[in-house]
Amino acid sequence: MCQLLGMNGNVPTDICFSFEGFRARGGKTDEHVDGWGIAFFEGPGCRVFLDDQASSGSTVAELVRNYPIRSTNVIAHIRKASHGKVSLENTHPFQRELWGRYWIFAHNGELENFNPSLSNIYRPVGETDSERAFCQILEHLKARFPGKDVPSTQQLTAALKDISEKISPHGIFNFLLSNGELLFARSSTDLHYIVRKAPFAEAHLVDEDISINFSDVTTPSDRVAIIATKPLTDNETWTRIAPDTLMVFVDGEPVD
Amino acid sequence: MCQLLGMNGNVPTDICFSFEGFRARGGKTDEHVDGWGIAFFEGPGCRVFLDDQASSGSTVAELVRNYPIRSTNVIAHIRKASHGKVSLENTHPFQRELWGRYWIFAHNGELENFNPSLSNIYRPVGETDSERAFCQILEHLKARFPGKDVPSTQQLTAALKDISEKISPHGIFNFLLSNGELLFARSSTDLHYIVRKAPFAEAHLVDEDISINFSDVTTPSDRVAIIATKPLTDNETWTRIAPDTLMVFVDGEPVD
Repeated sequence: MCQLLGMNGNVPTDICFSFEGFRARGGKTDEHVDGWGIAFFEGPGCRVFLDDQASSGSTVAELVRNYPIRSTNVIAHIRKASHGKVSLENTHPFQRELWGRYWIFAHNGELENFNPSLSNIYRPVGETDSERAFCQILEHLKARFPGKDVPSTQQLTAALKDISEKISPHGIFNFLLSNGELLFARSSTDLHYIVRKAPFAEAHLVDEDISINFSDVTTPSDRVAIIATKPLTDNETWTRIAPDTLMVFVDGEPVD
Repeated sequence: MCQLLGMNGNVPTDICFSFEGFRARGGKTDEHVDGWGIAFFEGPGCRVFLDDQASSGSTVAELVRNYPIRSTNVIAHIRKASHGKVSLENTHPFQRELWGRYWIFAHNGELENFNPSLSNIYRPVGETDSERAFCQILEHLKARFPGKDVPSTQQLTAALKDISEKISPHGIFNFLLSNGELLFARSSTDLHYIVRKAPFAEAHLVDEDISINFSDVTTPSDRVAIIATKPLTDNETWTRIAPDTLMVFVDGEPVD
């Protein structure tokens, strides 16, 4: 099993505070030591940092912690290998292009007896059930919307619900998916979120004795949603996403 | 215009020495200040570091310099923007998946009046002539070899020569392309290479007063080819790749 972290905001925001607590779960406060990765969208461009080392001791994670990349959409993942060996090609998040946009995907859970018949459009490079699921999702989207433009949020949400319901009987299927504008969060078992907006207050990490007063680093119009497998702070109210629910976040808040 | 750096070896090798000289051309010894990127294959997996800052002052470049990632295939690029604004989505190298392998591409040159009619399989995310060329190359390969397996090196080379000859009349078309096993180097104007193998000797950078004695850091069976727009060292003999020539490197040496 693994853990997920996502961010969706209405202004480019750094994720240093949340990442500090999250990365501790990769070998320090929890057992997710089989690699980690993080993707930052900056407009349609995307940077993906991957490492097959534990995040708690990773040189690349140290860079990410100290280098405040400002992004409106972030997806991160720490891995406890279940399907597929510990290697770079099996490290989440995964990236592909569809409709002239990059799409980023990370999965928490295990899919059993999951061998979808994929056409030759999107092919997994590694051996994980997760990358197979990502390829099947993209094939489903491309087949349903064969045009050149990104469909509406409503259309995408409906299509993602349908394909998720096909995949989820195979096991646990929590995932985060983003194209740099929208962030989809699908809960199968464990996924929580919080929306931070004015009036901003102080937050304290669960995994490290570190606090931040968000009112010092924000403007009143900022709004940022953080999505995580387990709550990252111990003095804020996180909302559990109901099992078997797909949510979509836009400009820092969930939309119907 | 931009500059290219490639490495292909028969053992995982770090590129720290060559990168030290190369990155200096991104704002210190040369004018390529509009972003840079580097891709490291580790087996079929790939890490791509991208930055829209000048490489000579980049925090991410500092990490790459100090963190000896060992790889058998590397492609790096420093950018002087011609087509397309300075932004992450226009930063080389570019990545896509084909036949279940990642492919990495970087281009040096300018293509004028270059608007290939692309089908909907590979679409550019940014605005560069370079990413359009990459998409056209992949579409050509996929159309010519529609199966699920990577074709032979001879078949790939023939197909890449054909598509390169279609694109190159549009301007200058030096490129590096790799799938983690093969490294293709196509020269239009400027591209040089060197093969380092036993007996190893000392090398001294052109751009920085730094030397390395490769006999201290290698074993007798190691073999590494370095490909660069301009030679990176001033005490070794580099071979210029003849204009309008496509070479392919495997296990650290060119093959016919």
